[in-house]
Amino acid sequence: MTGKLAITGISQLVTLRGPARPRTGDEMGNLAIIDNGAMIIEGKRITCAGTRHEIEPLINANCKVIDAGGRVVMPGFIDAHTHPVFAGNRANEFEMRASGATYQQISAAGGGIQSTVKLTRAATEDELFETSKHYLEWFLRSGTTTIEAKSGYGLTVEDELKMLRVVRRLNNEGPIRLVPTFLGAHSIPEEFKDHRADYVNLIVNEMLPKVADEGLAEYCDVFCEEGAFSIDETRRIMLAAKERGLKLRLHADQLTLNGGAALAAELGAVTADHLEQADLKGIERLKAAGVQPILLPASVLMIGSTKYPDARAMIDSGLAVVLATDFNPGSSPVPSMPLVLTLASTMMKMTPAEAITAATINAAYSLDRGAEIGSLEPGKVADFVIYDCSDYREIAYFAGVEHVMKVFISGMIQSSGGIQEGGKNIFSLKIS
Amino acid sequence: MTGKLAITGISQLVTLRGPARPRTGDEMGNLAIIDNGAMIIEGKRITCAGTRHEIEPLINANCKVIDAGGRVVMPGFIDAHTHPVFAGNRANEFEMRASGATYQQISAAGGGIQSTVKLTRAATEDELFETSKHYLEWFLRSGTTTIEAKSGYGLTVEDELKMLRVVRRLNNEGPIRLVPTFLGAHSIPEEFKDHRADYVNLIVNEMLPKVADEGLAEYCDVFCEEGAFSIDETRRIMLAAKERGLKLRLHADQLTLNGGAALAAELGAVTADHLEQADLKGIERLKAAGVQPILLPASVLMIGSTKYPDARAMIDSGLAVVLATDFNPGSSPVPSMPLVLTLASTMMKMTPAEAITAATINAAYSLDRGAEIGSLEPGKVADFVIYDCSDYREIAYFAGVEHVMKVFISGMIQSSGGIQEGGKNIFSLKIS
Repeated sequence: MTGKLAITGISQLVTLRGPARPRTGDEMGNLAIIDNGAMIIEGKRITCAGTRHEIEPLINANCKVIDAGGRVVMPGFIDAHTHPVFAGNRANEFEMRASGATYQQISAAGGGIQSTVKLTRAATEDELFETSKHYLEWFLRSGTTTIEAKSGYGLTVEDELKMLRVVRRLNNEGPIRLVPTFLGAHSIPEEFKDHRADYVNLIVNEMLPKVADEGLAEYCDVFCEEGAFSIDETRRIMLAAKERGLKLRLHADQLTLNGGAALAAELGAVTADHLEQADLKGIERLKAAGVQPILLPASVLMIGSTKYPDARAMIDSGLAVVLATDFNPGSSPVPSMPLVLTLASTMMKMTPAEAITAATINAAYSLDRGAEIGSLEPGKVADFVIYDCSDYREIAYFAGVEHVMKVFISGMIQSSGGIQEGGKNIFSLKIS
Repeated sequence: MTGKLAITGISQLVTLRGPARPRTGDEMGNLAIIDNGAMIIEGKRITCAGTRHEIEPLINANCKVIDAGGRVVMPGFIDAHTHPVFAGNRANEFEMRASGATYQQISAAGGGIQSTVKLTRAATEDELFETSKHYLEWFLRSGTTTIEAKSGYGLTVEDELKMLRVVRRLNNEGPIRLVPTFLGAHSIPEEFKDHRADYVNLIVNEMLPKVADEGLAEYCDVFCEEGAFSIDETRRIMLAAKERGLKLRLHADQLTLNGGAALAAELGAVTADHLEQADLKGIERLKAAGVQPILLPASVLMIGSTKYPDARAMIDSGLAVVLATDFNPGSSPVPSMPLVLTLASTMMKMTPAEAITAATINAAYSLDRGAEIGSLEPGKVADFVIYDCSDYREIAYFAGVEHVMKVFISGMIQSSGGIQEGGKNIFSLKIS
């Protein structure tokens, strides 16, 4: 679409306009909503966003007009922590956990990450591409337009590269944007379990150089956890990644408090993710180092835990909190940012506005995309969603419902959802 | 549709066939799944359900054939506890709770049920009908084909009748089936708060006779809870309802353990609903009296609580457990049975199979519809759903996703969902 497009009839245009940096403290509660809003898009970018009275005089005959019919328009969600490339699923382990087994017990019994690794190694790049494409449809239908995507189910040089090539292909094919993260240090693979130092060497000496040479990842992540990678192993991998020009994200303090948050601060990581067990000392370290916390409440729910990260303490301390799904086949088979918003408000006491800030503009900055996406302002890329409700709070409040009516990426309609008016799709009527 | 319809290509035909009574204990884990299944429907009823090898020879030229493409087919969900008729919503209170206010504090501040009562009284029957129809779309898209529907936001003779007439109209219009429940005793209305006995008199002497005379409800329910109706008030209303020929359901032991479960047993209620606080003694009473517990985990999540009812103790004691959404604008704005299944498995340790039994055949019996719906067996009404997955466990496991591909009620397609194959709706292609 190279022409001009106007969106009118917006009950709440949730712009999130504001300073060109992540939002902290009280700023997180300010969505900069324009009531009775309208917006003009030229090519792939937003050129104007304002009230209908400001915008309507700018609409001329060359402009396609979409009337949102009194509905909410928001930026697309940016899901800054996902594992969307994997073969098979682990519904059987979901059932085992329901029967009383813990995540760690399942893992010790040969389930867990290793079972996905086995299937992912056996899958071809094409097979993984097709499966992941199916999952990306779910993200899109939930209103998500950008995801961070990690490797980490290959755990050999070739299989890690295979996963990252799938991410690249998905990003090239579109419409969802993907930001690639190398997570070779997701788990010590079976064949290295008696000589784990060799696996760390493999990551540092072979995987990282190849990933960097092929330009397959923008970030490096390590699962720093008892049973996964120790603080010292994590530090070594992270420093090597930094030398190769990768930016850092870190799985920290999820199941145990082992100093992951402090390490993220020490290394100058961009994000520290999970933090269910992080304490106030860890939070202070993150703050001092400017690390963004990425909170993943769906992974708390799905393992049957009630120990959510302390979002309020983080917001109060001035951290620029991010929310993400952690979509993966084990601890969080949840692609839905709206469900994450619901959990953030019910279980972590973030207001709906704070949660949306964490899922859009703050997430964009955590992926170094804050100048391009995450808010609806002139100059930004037109990634936005029309929701079938008139108040943005309903998206988290009416839970378990897909409220998305239309998703736009780079100014182009991507998804028509299942919602129709009077038996006819109102948008296809007005556009064509 | 009066002709013959065959559904083939079913990876798992989840029949739930079994004894003609609610399922208890180990029976709850047995879904009687037919792998590689197929099914024939004539008019509105199922005539055959079996393996494709059994069914395919019965398909002739007069039979429309729908190939499910290796997907799951299950009975439609039966949601045995909902409040779908109300005006306005309470997204503002959702936000207040996220900011730290409790359900009781909101109620004391003039929010809660009373705010919905005010708006519902002011709304016309037509307005309520249209709003509720919108919510019924959400139920349908989640795979629900029958709901129990309560009054309880009118709290005057006329407004309670108005709500129940809306339920009747929705049921007549279809496609979703509604089973009406009179819940005049949902809350003491503002104007009676200083003379509550008069309101109980109004229910007993005016509301109940009119509801019964117009045949507007099949069940009577009371919110037996501190701040709502006492044990004695509840008993009086329930006995009067019984005399009028209504069957009994009871909101029991939700926020406090006040003996609601024991009262349900004493009165011979069909169901005792909520039971978050019920103890083993209460559970034994329910078992001895043959009362079915209806568990509502979404209402636990949505008020930010972690105190779920003790489903395992109930199953172990031989109760025929039911799961429902409790869809309502205050404590559970959740129309999605799949999300309820997810919570049942993660937070209440019911297996996916037990949860599905609780959401279909056991729910059907709790509404006195067990002979007609709730399983896929010859002679039963053809209310079923095709899900876009090959293993039924994925419906609860991949949470926050609408997996529904097609919903059939009385053998007729009702919903096409948003899922397409190769850009074309595969079913409309094959049917027309």
